[in-house]
Parts: sequence; structure tokens; C-alpha cells
Amino acid sequence: MKSTLPPSGMRDFLPSEKAMREYVMSEIRSVYRGSGFREVETSFIENLENLTGGDGGENTKLIFKILKRGEKLKVHADSREDDLSDLGLRFDLTLPLVRFYANNKNNLPSIFKAIQMGPVFRAERPQKGRYRCFMQCDIDVIGDESNLAEIEIILTIAKALKKLGLKQFNIKMNDRRILKAMVLSAGFAEADFGDIAIILDKQDKIGDEGVQKELLEKQFAPDAVGRLQDISSQLSLQGLEAVKAFCPDGYDNLRDIISVVKGFEEDFTVSFDHTLVRGMGYYTSTIFEVAYGNLGYSVAGGGRYDKMIGSILGTDVPAVGFSIGFERIVDILMEENRSLENDVKIALLFNEADDLLKVMTLAAEMRGIYNVVSVYKSKKKLGKQLEQLSKNGYNGFTIYGDTCEVKLFDA
Amino acid sequence: MKSTLPPSGMRDFLPSEKAMREYVMSEIRSVYRGSGFREVETSFIENLENLTGGDGGENTKLIFKILKRGEKLKVHADSREDDLSDLGLRFDLTLPLVRFYANNKNNLPSIFKAIQMGPVFRAERPQKGRYRCFMQCDIDVIGDESNLAEIEIILTIAKALKKLGLKQFNIKMNDRRILKAMVLSAGFAEADFGDIAIILDKQDKIGDEGVQKELLEKQFAPDAVGRLQDISSQLSLQGLEAVKAFCPDGYDNLRDIISVVKGFEEDFTVSFDHTLVRGMGYYTSTIFEVAYGNLGYSVAGGGRYDKMIGSILGTDVPAVGFSIGFERIVDILMEENRSLENDVKIALLFNEADDLLKVMTLAAEMRGIYNVVSVYKSKKKLGKQLEQLSKNGYNGFTIYGDTCEVKLFDA
Repeated sequence: MKSTLPPSGMRDFLPSEKAMREYVMSEIRSVYRGSGFREVETSFIENLENLTGGDGGENTKLIFKILKRGEKLKVHADSREDDLSDLGLRFDLTLPLVRFYANNKNNLPSIFKAIQMGPVFRAERPQKGRYRCFMQCDIDVIGDESNLAEIEIILTIAKALKKLGLKQFNIKMNDRRILKAMVLSAGFAEADFGDIAIILDKQDKIGDEGVQKELLEKQFAPDAVGRLQDISSQLSLQGLEAVKAFCPDGYDNLRDIISVVKGFEEDFTVSFDHTLVRGMGYYTSTIFEVAYGNLGYSVAGGGRYDKMIGSILGTDVPAVGFSIGFERIVDILMEENRSLENDVKIALLFNEADDLLKVMTLAAEMRGIYNVVSVYKSKKKLGKQLEQLSKNGYNGFTIYGDTCEVKLFDA
Repeated sequence: MKSTLPPSGMRDFLPSEKAMREYVMSEIRSVYRGSGFREVETSFIENLENLTGGDGGENTKLIFKILKRGEKLKVHADSREDDLSDLGLRFDLTLPLVRFYANNKNNLPSIFKAIQMGPVFRAERPQKGRYRCFMQCDIDVIGDESNLAEIEIILTIAKALKKLGLKQFNIKMNDRRILKAMVLSAGFAEADFGDIAIILDKQDKIGDEGVQKELLEKQFAPDAVGRLQDISSQLSLQGLEAVKAFCPDGYDNLRDIISVVKGFEEDFTVSFDHTLVRGMGYYTSTIFEVAYGNLGYSVAGGGRYDKMIGSILGTDVPAVGFSIGFERIVDILMEENRSLENDVKIALLFNEADDLLKVMTLAAEMRGIYNVVSVYKSKKKLGKQLEQLSKNGYNGFTIYGDTCEVKLFDA
């Protein structure tokens, strides 16, 4: 073994880190479940043609591909990458869910509320805060065309974030149809919408000026670029009301959803944000994102994708999904140094001469009383041993054969 | 998407299957934790040279290898598999744990009691009950040379299995040193021990006669093969006492461990089994396996591996591990049709004309009372809708605007 480190961009987790991860997972899972979502699991590995054939956008360039095995692997001088590989690691949970739904539709309720929590893999250039394997925690409502789907999903995500102690977050909402109407009103061609959306998506990083510059560099008509900027400024000033005139569908949709979610504003806010784009091309109308903290970190995002299942199944099935950025939330809670382990942990110490059966019997009894009981042989330097135990999170100890009284360490 | 099935040998899990998996995981985890084990997580992906360079035995032939990416991938007519690949999916949790321990030793207590629960991947020929991705649930004690490690681990595994409702299982124990002494006493050369152990390991499938046949086919001396059979017969008759004469270390070790574990025999038994071999070459002394049911399915296995960490770290660190065969246990519990979901699930139905904010406010209140509350628009055919809800596990419903009284479905 040349290196004991995990591969570049991959991670191991120490007990304190893993405890935080499990805590976050279990809090999210319990809120998701409480709202009637049910967990499914999809394969970590997909047929490569399924991963590359869909609407995965940039992510399809980041697939970890798995080498063919045995006789299937035939290497020639002119072998292309895809001749060598038949499987790949999934890069998100949405594409596997859509495949899963298409495969199991007849065994699922007509409105299916799904939880998926699991790892996804992307061969990104490793950098701080960006990992090549990370957890996603998704909920999706499949089969409901009404805005109840968006409302349930948004309120459930908000409740989960609040349960994790996140406060003062903002739920930003937009509608792909509004973005499209903006672009068309400005005079761009409909065919250019996808490319323009990719540039608009960078607004939070490069600002309005950056967006204008990039649009002009791509040879879009300066007139249209200017008008788009005017519409954008108008929306900044007047908010959702200004949408009514040029995109009544999008206006009605966001007004209805926001009016319900606003009724639950407590520790969070919800607002229309015409600069929200969301990267994935498969969103068809409502899109949303949760911004947290002074830096406005995105901690969750999602939207409605009414056409994606139809592209596989042949008949359209409406769907909405929302994904919590698990890794970012864990990072935030670790930085806030949130204390976690409420278990009472007791060490049971024994001496060489003690009867191990009796010691273990006592341990079994104590495990009915304390959350965690661990048995250790007592060391000659007992003081140092107790210090170590306290450092490792033990709340107290008892020595077998004494009165078996539990002595707590000073807090 | 040509197929909506997961790739060959891979699986998706429906809500009822996933609920069972989560239940089994959480029961195992809670018992492990109660005995003072702490969970860590290691990378699913390892550097390929780490996977192939160790003592993984047959498993190293089953590695899913990941294609190199970008400029690193250079294909020639004579490219070998390992030129094309730099990473691989882990095939067990032990090798990653050993790497993790070597990397983090200074941040871990001197006796480190580890939990690892996660997926492993093996490119086996797919067949019933054999999966290419499956969960393992391991505990390991690292840094304890005393048999307390074995005892804690065995009692913890037994408690976990009992908590899952498994009864009448048998913990079979052996010691690699006893196997070796048997082989040497019979007159085989020490260098042949590994090969002979692989054949002995098949005893439960091919019987004593099959073992003899294979040994003779491999050109081992018929005298030695006969003597090995004699020793084996003697051990079958006389049990552990017969070991004393030719392997006192192994005898003392098993006698001490079994005498303590026997004190906890309740719904399970523990016994010496000289036919137990365990496949992995890295075990150094104690080995154990749990057999369940009439067919003697192996549902857990492990042993002591005192040399494996040293092969990486340079200095030996004693270690014992035990792994629960998660998939087999889930299969057993699914077959036994164990009922799981104790949550009270209520559907809140509303009508088109209702104020959605008020409906969702009621839902939020109800979620403080019932485990699961899910909101649905009521359908024209209410009777049929209620039938569906009941079928999907709901215990009752309420209609918004009525008296909001919850009506339970007939059980």
C-alpha cells in the first residue's frame, strides 16, 4: 500500500464526523417520513448508456466509468472510451429515480412520494468543499400535477432544515416559464433559450455586468441583451407583480405557492427571485433553492420536471423534486461545533484476576441502564486511563468488584 | 434508455424492502453503539493498487475497476487492464478499515472499537441470493491483544441477532492455529497449509469424502490425507478436549472464550467446530461464524487478524473483526414476512375549494400528533381512494372542513 489516504477527492470519516453525518441523515429522514414520503433505494451503478443518454447536462462529462470485465473487454489501438466501459457510477439521484419509477410504476401508488438518500459520484477536479463522492437527500412527488406537490415538498424541506437548527434561510423561487418569457420578450430566439439560461445561471457569481458581457461575447444582439437587462431591472424593483403582464401562467403558479408557504414563515423567508435559473435542463416550470447564512450558501434546490419520466415511459407523468445539500449542511454544523452525542457513556473496568463471565454479565445488565457501556481492562496508570476515557467521550466509569458504583467524570 | 432495470446483479429497493433494510441497519447500529463501538465511514472507492496489493484472496479477481479519466487514459493495442484503470470499488470493509486506521491512528483511542456499515462491490456471476453490490455491517476491535476483544465482539453480534428476532443460531468457533496443527500433525508441509485450507473450507458443501477426493487430486500424499481424516474424526467425537494435545495455544484460547460466551447462551449456542476454516488468508488465530436455521445459513463471520495492520503500518497492531451478513438477514426477515411499520399513518383529504394554507396548517398540527400525515386532494370516487390509502399502509383519514375527526380504517 503506497498511500494510506483515500483516493484524491474521496473521503474517510472519523467517529465524530460520522456521528454528525448520521445525526443529519436521521433528522432529515424522520421529517421526510412524517410528511408521508417513503424511502426507496436505487442502484449506485447504472448502465452507462442510461447515464449518458439523458438530460444530465454537464454532469455526464463527470461520470466515473467502470471497465468492462473478462471477455467483454477487448482493447484495440483505436478503442474509444465507451468501448471499454459498460457501467458507470450515478452522478445524481434523479435519473435513477426516474428509471426506478418507470420500472415499478404498477407497484407504486398513483401519487408516489419518494425519499432517496445515498451517495453520488462525480469526477470533478478536487477542490475545497467539492467532493468526488457526496451524499444527496432527495424527496420527490411523482404523479401530482397540482401545486400541492411543490407546497408539501417546500414545507417539508423547510421543516427539516429548521429541525437541524438552521435559521434565517431564504427560499428563492422562480419558474422556468418566466425565464423563457423574459428571454423571448427581450427579442431572443426561442432556440437560444438553453444557452442563455446557462449564462444567466452565473449571475450570482459574475453579476449583471458579467452576464451582459458573456451574452455579447456569444454574439447575441446587443439590443436584446439590453432589453433583457431592462426587464431584469424592472423585476428587481417591482417583484412578482411585474411578471403578470408577460407570463401569467408563471405568475399564477408562484403567487399561489408563495402565498401558502409564506403562512409558515418562521425562522425563514420565501421570495420570488427572477435571477434563479438552476442548472439542469429538465426543469419545466417551478424551480426553487434555499440560501443560508450571510454568504447565501445554497443548501437545497429543486424544481418541477414534468417531461422527464415521459421521455422514458412514453406517457408524461408530472414530478417535483427537492434535494438537500447534505455535505454543505454537515460542514456548516461541524463549523458551528454543534454538540451531538447525548448518550450516557460508561466504562466498566476490570482486573486481570476477575472472572470475565461475571464482568460481562454486569456489562450486559448495565447496558439496560446506560446508552453505552464499554468494557476495558484497567491499566496500571489508572489516572491516565480515566483521563483518556473522558477525552474519548465517556461520562463516567465503574470498577468491577468494588461496590460497582458508577463515578461520573467532572463535566 | 434501453432498459429500466438496474444493471445485471444490481438492485433497486421498493419502499417495503427499503423499510426492512433501514430497520435492520438501525437495530444493528443501536446494539453496536451500546457496546461502545463508534461508527466510521471509509471511501467506497480505493486506489486500485491498494485493492490488488493486499491479502484479499479470490475477491481481488472480482474488482469493479474504474476507467482512468481525461489525459491519463491512453489506449494502445497492447494496453493491459491495469494501464486503463487507477481506481476500484472496494470488495470488503476490512481493507479500507486497515488503511483508515493506519492513516488516523493518532486521532483514535489505543483500543479502537469501530463500526462500519456500507456497500461493497464484487463482479461475481449474478445468481439467486448473490448480489454484485451488498451491504456489510462490521464491528472491529483494533489494539486489544486479549480475548476480551473476541468476547465483546461475539456477545455484541449475538445480541444484535437476537434483537432482530433470530433465534436458535449457533456460533461456531475455531482457531487457525488448530487447523494448521491438524495439517502439520497429519504430515503435510507447512508451505501447503494455504492450499489445503482452501479445500477444507469446502467441507460443508462437498463433505469429508469430497475433501479427501480433492486433496488426492491435488497430488497430496495419500498417507497424510488419511491421517488428516483420522484427526478430523477424532475431533468430531471428542471435541475441543482432543485439541489440547497437539495445539495447546488454540485450546486455551477457545476454551477461555467459549466458557464466557456459554454463560450467555439463551436462544443461541456456541461450540467448537474444527471444520470451520473461513476463506480469508489474513486470519491469524480465532475464527467464528454464525449458522442460522435448519439449512445452517451463515449469517455472520469473522476472526482475529493480528498481522494485517502491521503489513501497512510497519508495527503489528492486534485486531478482531466480525461482519453480519446483512443481505441474508434481510432476506430471512422478508421471507418470515415480519411486519415492521408501527407508525400511525393518517391521510388528510381536502377539496378543491378549500384554503390550502389552512389545510397545510392543520397538517402541520396533525404531524405533532401522528407519526405520518400526508395531504391529498380528495377524489370523486372517495371510496376507491380510501381503499387505495388503506392498501398503501394508511391507518385512517380525515377530511378537512368536516369536524376534522380522524376515522380509522377497519383493521
